[in-house]
Amino acid sequence: MTLSLALFLGMQAVPALAASEPIQPIPAAKAKDAGLVELGKKLYFDTRLSKSGFISCNSCHNLSLGGTDNLKTSIGHNWQKGPINAPTVLNSSMNLAQFWDGRAKDLKAQAGGPIANPGEMAFTHELAVDVLQSIPGYVAEFKTVFGNDKVTIDGVTKAIAAFEETLVTPNSRFDKWLKGDKKALSKDEVAGYSLFKDSGCTACHNGAAVGGNSFQKMGVVESYKASSPAEGRVAVTKDEADRFNFKVPTLRNVELTYPYFHDGEAATLKQAVDTMGRIQLGRQFTDDENGKVVAFLKTLTGDQPSFKLPILPPSSDATPRPAPFDK
Amino acid sequence: MTLSLALFLGMQAVPALAASEPIQPIPAAKAKDAGLVELGKKLYFDTRLSKSGFISCNSCHNLSLGGTDNLKTSIGHNWQKGPINAPTVLNSSMNLAQFWDGRAKDLKAQAGGPIANPGEMAFTHELAVDVLQSIPGYVAEFKTVFGNDKVTIDGVTKAIAAFEETLVTPNSRFDKWLKGDKKALSKDEVAGYSLFKDSGCTACHNGAAVGGNSFQKMGVVESYKASSPAEGRVAVTKDEADRFNFKVPTLRNVELTYPYFHDGEAATLKQAVDTMGRIQLGRQFTDDENGKVVAFLKTLTGDQPSFKLPILPPSSDATPRPAPFDK
Repeated sequence: MTLSLALFLGMQAVPALAASEPIQPIPAAKAKDAGLVELGKKLYFDTRLSKSGFISCNSCHNLSLGGTDNLKTSIGHNWQKGPINAPTVLNSSMNLAQFWDGRAKDLKAQAGGPIANPGEMAFTHELAVDVLQSIPGYVAEFKTVFGNDKVTIDGVTKAIAAFEETLVTPNSRFDKWLKGDKKALSKDEVAGYSLFKDSGCTACHNGAAVGGNSFQKMGVVESYKASSPAEGRVAVTKDEADRFNFKVPTLRNVELTYPYFHDGEAATLKQAVDTMGRIQLGRQFTDDENGKVVAFLKTLTGDQPSFKLPILPPSSDATPRPAPFDK
Repeated sequence: MTLSLALFLGMQAVPALAASEPIQPIPAAKAKDAGLVELGKKLYFDTRLSKSGFISCNSCHNLSLGGTDNLKTSIGHNWQKGPINAPTVLNSSMNLAQFWDGRAKDLKAQAGGPIANPGEMAFTHELAVDVLQSIPGYVAEFKTVFGNDKVTIDGVTKAIAAFEETLVTPNSRFDKWLKGDKKALSKDEVAGYSLFKDSGCTACHNGAAVGGNSFQKMGVVESYKASSPAEGRVAVTKDEADRFNFKVPTLRNVELTYPYFHDGEAATLKQAVDTMGRIQLGRQFTDDENGKVVAFLKTLTGDQPSFKLPILPPSSDATPRPAPFDK
């Protein structure tokens, strides 16, 4: 009923206004296999996918916190300092590729990365599968979902990706405005959107995710001195032209996903807007302009994920125990 | 409706059977101020109560994992190895005191401990309050709940305790059996309960929480060589007679709260039952007996917490940022 109404409103309103705009309303999540999503949700919250038994997907992509950890760079196994800011998982299914350098083609390919990264969850796919295979509750759920009681990393990452694909955030105030509700935004917020477009921000931050659909150089007009060692897209393509090119982050829910940039060095939206204006567009926003753009950006916060905290099946006597204090 | 029915069943069935048993059915949670509980739930999940911005109450008392971290000893700030096994938060409102040594008289007193413990969340009460006071969403919620927009550590711990008091787990199969549903347990499970009583386990593990209501010496018949430096109740009372006395843990949901003992050295229920029989009761359970007691213990798993993952209010530009890599 709610979905039908949303679709109805969307179909009516988009042609009237949004179609001519560089940003489109975010579509609701596509219906997925409910059992697969439920399994993926459990795995997303399961700390047993890490060597320590302490770190889950949700540790760094915390769904209580806009799908991020709100840290400059993440904390990995043995409190290692990560090299890069954790991007939000919210609306990540709309990205052209995953990770800041796009090295994973989709969410399924991404999901296996942190599990086996020695600086993150520090496990291996084989050990993660061994753990899950020893847990009767998971074996039964894999059997129901995949028709096979053999746990595989392919099934694990498929389920996590399916859950992540549900994490879209429709119904932001901006989307309501795009769909024709003129009272959804204040005068300053609309002025901020105009500035955002007129200044050229939408050259990169466009589409339904307001970003996520291209790689761009960080520091077009002025160079950017990053505190992170990350080289950007060149690490994937080996093409020097891609040095310091990063995936343009989505600005959906950007009020929640501080700090900003791949090195997390911009603590506030005010700083992020100021820096982006200068280094990408050669424009120094006044305080008044900055305030308006920030006011617009805060209208991009949509419905946050809404589901019950998953209860995880217990380990069995045969389950390999975590080794948090092994290096 | 469900609550009334449960009370009705409880009132009918308890006199018939449970009243003569050393274990009583677990009562449903008392109704509390819903706004206070909701605020407490958010704080329980909020990593910003730690210096690192990475550790919340739920990190070590994980409600997806039986209210524990399923580690021998917990991981604190900077990956410090904790001195003791994290006890479950489930049904902890029924404990005679909090922590293994009972140094906190109630959940409110307990809640402030880990926040300021340098080996756990490594923050201070003052800094935690400063962070919350800078977050408009929290200030508004404190105003609604306490009628005052000044955040205090007293309000913080009161709210967390109120949430924790809702974390009771009624309706285990054992409780259904106690209330008269004879088909709720198998023959082996009933035999396990008889062994549990006849062997003397109920001398300490009794009452609605099957423990939690006394301090007892770890190692009555045989001494126990702990891997933990914890001294037990003597640390609180300074009375040498209390050396190595620990709060008897609840056995509710014990299938979920592995590993066992204050040092977490018993990885499985089989090991825990074997050790307890030997060192506390001077009894060597046979494999068959051990299996039956373990089967009984697994009937103590009740309804797990059921609520939506809380969405936390975002920090403001004025919020002090976390310092995960400061020692």
